[in-house]
Amino acid sequence: MAYKAPVRDFTFLLTDVLDIDRYSNLPGFADASSDLVAQILEEGAKFAEEVIAPLNKTGDQEGCKLNADGTVTTPTGWRAAYKQMVEAGWPALSSDPAYGGQGMPAVVSMAYGQMTAAASAAFSMYPGLTHGVYSALIAAGSEEQKATYLPKLVSGEWGGTMNLTEPQCGTDLGMIRTKAVPNGDGSYQITGQKIWISSGEHDFTDNIIHLVLARIEGAPQGVKGISLFVVPKFFVNADGSLGERNNAKCAGLEHKMGIHGNATAVMAYDDAKGWLVGKENEGLKAMFVMMNEARLGTGLQGLSIGAAAYQAAVEFAKERLQGRSLTGPKNPDGPADPIIVHPDVRRMLMESKAFIEGGQAFVLWTALHADLQHSPDEAVATKAKDYMGLLTPVLKAYLTDRGFHVASQAMQVHGGSGYTEHFPASQYLRDARITMIYEGTNGVQALDLVGRKLAANGGRAVMTFFQEVDAYVAERQANAELKPFLDGLADTKAKLQEATFWLMQNGVANPDNAGAASTDYLHVFGLTALAYMWAQMAEAAQAKIAAGDTDPFYASKLTTGRFFLERILPDAAGHLAKLKTGADTMMALPAEAF
Amino acid sequence: MAYKAPVRDFTFLLTDVLDIDRYSNLPGFADASSDLVAQILEEGAKFAEEVIAPLNKTGDQEGCKLNADGTVTTPTGWRAAYKQMVEAGWPALSSDPAYGGQGMPAVVSMAYGQMTAAASAAFSMYPGLTHGVYSALIAAGSEEQKATYLPKLVSGEWGGTMNLTEPQCGTDLGMIRTKAVPNGDGSYQITGQKIWISSGEHDFTDNIIHLVLARIEGAPQGVKGISLFVVPKFFVNADGSLGERNNAKCAGLEHKMGIHGNATAVMAYDDAKGWLVGKENEGLKAMFVMMNEARLGTGLQGLSIGAAAYQAAVEFAKERLQGRSLTGPKNPDGPADPIIVHPDVRRMLMESKAFIEGGQAFVLWTALHADLQHSPDEAVATKAKDYMGLLTPVLKAYLTDRGFHVASQAMQVHGGSGYTEHFPASQYLRDARITMIYEGTNGVQALDLVGRKLAANGGRAVMTFFQEVDAYVAERQANAELKPFLDGLADTKAKLQEATFWLMQNGVANPDNAGAASTDYLHVFGLTALAYMWAQMAEAAQAKIAAGDTDPFYASKLTTGRFFLERILPDAAGHLAKLKTGADTMMALPAEAF
Repeated sequence: MAYKAPVRDFTFLLTDVLDIDRYSNLPGFADASSDLVAQILEEGAKFAEEVIAPLNKTGDQEGCKLNADGTVTTPTGWRAAYKQMVEAGWPALSSDPAYGGQGMPAVVSMAYGQMTAAASAAFSMYPGLTHGVYSALIAAGSEEQKATYLPKLVSGEWGGTMNLTEPQCGTDLGMIRTKAVPNGDGSYQITGQKIWISSGEHDFTDNIIHLVLARIEGAPQGVKGISLFVVPKFFVNADGSLGERNNAKCAGLEHKMGIHGNATAVMAYDDAKGWLVGKENEGLKAMFVMMNEARLGTGLQGLSIGAAAYQAAVEFAKERLQGRSLTGPKNPDGPADPIIVHPDVRRMLMESKAFIEGGQAFVLWTALHADLQHSPDEAVATKAKDYMGLLTPVLKAYLTDRGFHVASQAMQVHGGSGYTEHFPASQYLRDARITMIYEGTNGVQALDLVGRKLAANGGRAVMTFFQEVDAYVAERQANAELKPFLDGLADTKAKLQEATFWLMQNGVANPDNAGAASTDYLHVFGLTALAYMWAQMAEAAQAKIAAGDTDPFYASKLTTGRFFLERILPDAAGHLAKLKTGADTMMALPAEAF
Repeated sequence: MAYKAPVRDFTFLLTDVLDIDRYSNLPGFADASSDLVAQILEEGAKFAEEVIAPLNKTGDQEGCKLNADGTVTTPTGWRAAYKQMVEAGWPALSSDPAYGGQGMPAVVSMAYGQMTAAASAAFSMYPGLTHGVYSALIAAGSEEQKATYLPKLVSGEWGGTMNLTEPQCGTDLGMIRTKAVPNGDGSYQITGQKIWISSGEHDFTDNIIHLVLARIEGAPQGVKGISLFVVPKFFVNADGSLGERNNAKCAGLEHKMGIHGNATAVMAYDDAKGWLVGKENEGLKAMFVMMNEARLGTGLQGLSIGAAAYQAAVEFAKERLQGRSLTGPKNPDGPADPIIVHPDVRRMLMESKAFIEGGQAFVLWTALHADLQHSPDEAVATKAKDYMGLLTPVLKAYLTDRGFHVASQAMQVHGGSGYTEHFPASQYLRDARITMIYEGTNGVQALDLVGRKLAANGGRAVMTFFQEVDAYVAERQANAELKPFLDGLADTKAKLQEATFWLMQNGVANPDNAGAASTDYLHVFGLTALAYMWAQMAEAAQAKIAAGDTDPFYASKLTTGRFFLERILPDAAGHLAKLKTGADTMMALPAEAF
């Protein structure tokens, strides 16, 4: 059941669909020709397949152990693999060269990231969180903080964590109680308990840099009184060496359904010393840099776990002999046919494949917009920023909802075998399930989309997206072969637009209508995004075939795209019909009727 | 998080919707007045809530242990609870009084069964499998076998198992290798390995009666050469006392994602002695009696785990304070509102509630038809038998697919808490997942439906069902209040009929079309069945309200039914659109393209 990274799909997307060589004017792209990127991905694939993937099951079975002295031991082999990762320079891939990074664009790191997340979601979270801390400090840290922490975070010699949740508050961060008392020397004493801290304590690195949301004494109530602090596990001396141990301790590890290899810590800050990051009471703004990155990373993770699960299902479906094809034996010399001949097994595999390949395109297309935010062309940069705001919740929630579904289908393909822990299907399903929850539940993403992102700047982002899709469809009407893809896209986009207008009309009259519509709306958006991706992939594949390329990869791409149109896209109508029924029935029952 | 059995829902269904007092002409019903049944269910609820439910988490955490001597130890407290269950007579509820049973109709035992399955799915499987062995022996056993085994199976003093699967065959039973060699005295020596044997070895009972599929030496290849044998763990002496240990041993326990409290055994039969049940080479026919019962039981189980998960989610949603209602604070004196005020949380709870209550009606309505098979009126009995054949795969697959979805939504309502093993959501999700797989995967159910059940007797069963629904709708057109329910039912039934005709036209031309359509078809069937149930429940609730009953239960029922129409029923159109695209794209890719 060895994981095989889909490098071919990624190079197709980067080279033939997104044509990244166009962007040599952007930071990092000059050093990221499609040829070089292909080499990087080949190396990344090797690392993911050979070093990370073999550790995934061990991590699930052993989990992390909290020792009596408060240290945490990660699963067998994990620490050594992480050291190898740092030595190979992988954590630094997309970081700023000023701090030792390699400066690769997001479009490259989010292809690489899909491979490590698929190889082991729990493992990839350690460098993932560290990169989030890097990004928050880049955005809001002082020069001194950057100099102190960034080089070792970039290299991966130190780890990082984000500390938001407390027992009484997860989504509702206004209820945070962890307090910060100024020492008068620019530092603060931090006291409080944080829970569900991924990678909170471990043996991968000599130091761990915690970013902690807390309330400075006397700060306003609610989210306007929350500040962000950097709280290192070990203090850092002026010469960069490690000093005393800070009073930031792991007080327990959660017993979770999955991602056992990642240490999910209860963190006790007991007069721990920390330093303000950014301005007082603007902690959420700084943390949102990290959270938005984490949301994209979580969408990517849900998709990637699904992709790994799909691979395991394919392998099983080709090997398991059971029953005969409905159209006559396909393996007449064997005792039975491989189950991949059965239509309903095909249905599950094709549905998974069509979603995964569409999702991979969506992730890289979005990553390209993350890069385009830095375009010197202001119009391009503004549009890219608009898209990132609009699409982050869609990508997070749609890809994790469906990624989990794909992981569940992979188990179904395995039959009874999949339910035993001998096969990898159970771990994939259990690991995938968290992605729908953390970094803001998918319901929170949907509310962010309809409640904030749609309306921002007078709806500019979504209108730009509609115009882009309309133009794409209009410009290709002469391409008869592409017609089914254009029609599917136009039809789904029309439904999305109808849903958007419905929200504008009904959400204002009764905000519950917006909330009641939010998840169905987000799914119509996800379907539209994937329809757009599939149209672009089909166009690129057709161009290759028209140019005489006989690689069956392109024909498969077209078939998979047609399956998407036939068997996934019809869901949009149901979502639209549901959301237009509004909130009245949904909200009618008193709490005691449940 | 204490489980509370929904006795009120069950009595409403039995009394007001199904009106079981009408059937006093049927076996068992004379002793099952709705009043008496209500008492039985109250008692059953008490037992499920107080004795079984508290053991569920222990079972998940401890699992079963295989000891060095081949015995299996069940989780702490399970054995004692089972003894208590036997003493209270619960296993005998619906068995034949001739063997010590209480002779209650299926409609009663399948209400009771929902409570025990919800309280602990893993626990309820022990008596569940035993009852399956009882039914197979009732149908196919010799008088001597009945006399030997049935009384103690009925009382629950002995347990039972069904042994079909082998490492090389699950769905494809034609590949069974376990062999049976006649001893010449009517007994056989059975040798082979069976896997995934639920309740295969345990400490609940003094004896375990295994029913084993095997191939008599020289039998025809494939399913036509398979016979059924009864293989007791301990032989039974002529006086009923236990004799020597048979060579039927537990060789291992599976490590599974869930239902840890049930011992899923690898069974090694090494020249074990067994006796033929029914005729040579007709083993599958006898085993199918047990399998059909197990399929209904599995559908019931998936639904019931979902129902228990829903209850836990409701409790959490009422207690967890987070954020404010979009329409202004609902708990202004608290630090935040309970999350049940948020529309997207409502959406999940209402979707779960509407499915569960519809599913509970579907189970009891089907159980009533199981009882009606014994009607002295031949037309009634024939129709009931037709329905049981047609609806068993629908009930099994639809209720488990959606039951798992409900369990997953219950986790989502919990947010991060749900992913920790501290809350019950994870266990419900993990336990529910097996129901989509065992007793024939849901894909196998769908193929059974479209490949066998639809066509049986020239399509008589499905045509009868259409006529029944048409008549139901036509007769109530004057009821304006019922109109939305009638319209929803008629519309969905029309889609089911369209799908049926599509299958008739296209399935013959290419059998892969039937396979490709099967799962979507089954879901349209499930939706139609639930729409029919909701129409009947709405009618009964309206009648109560019209008669002046002010119990808010009835108004809630109507609201929940409207939610079903608005937010679940629209899925039917998507399923229909998908299935009509046929098999061509689905089957187009060569295996190596996956």
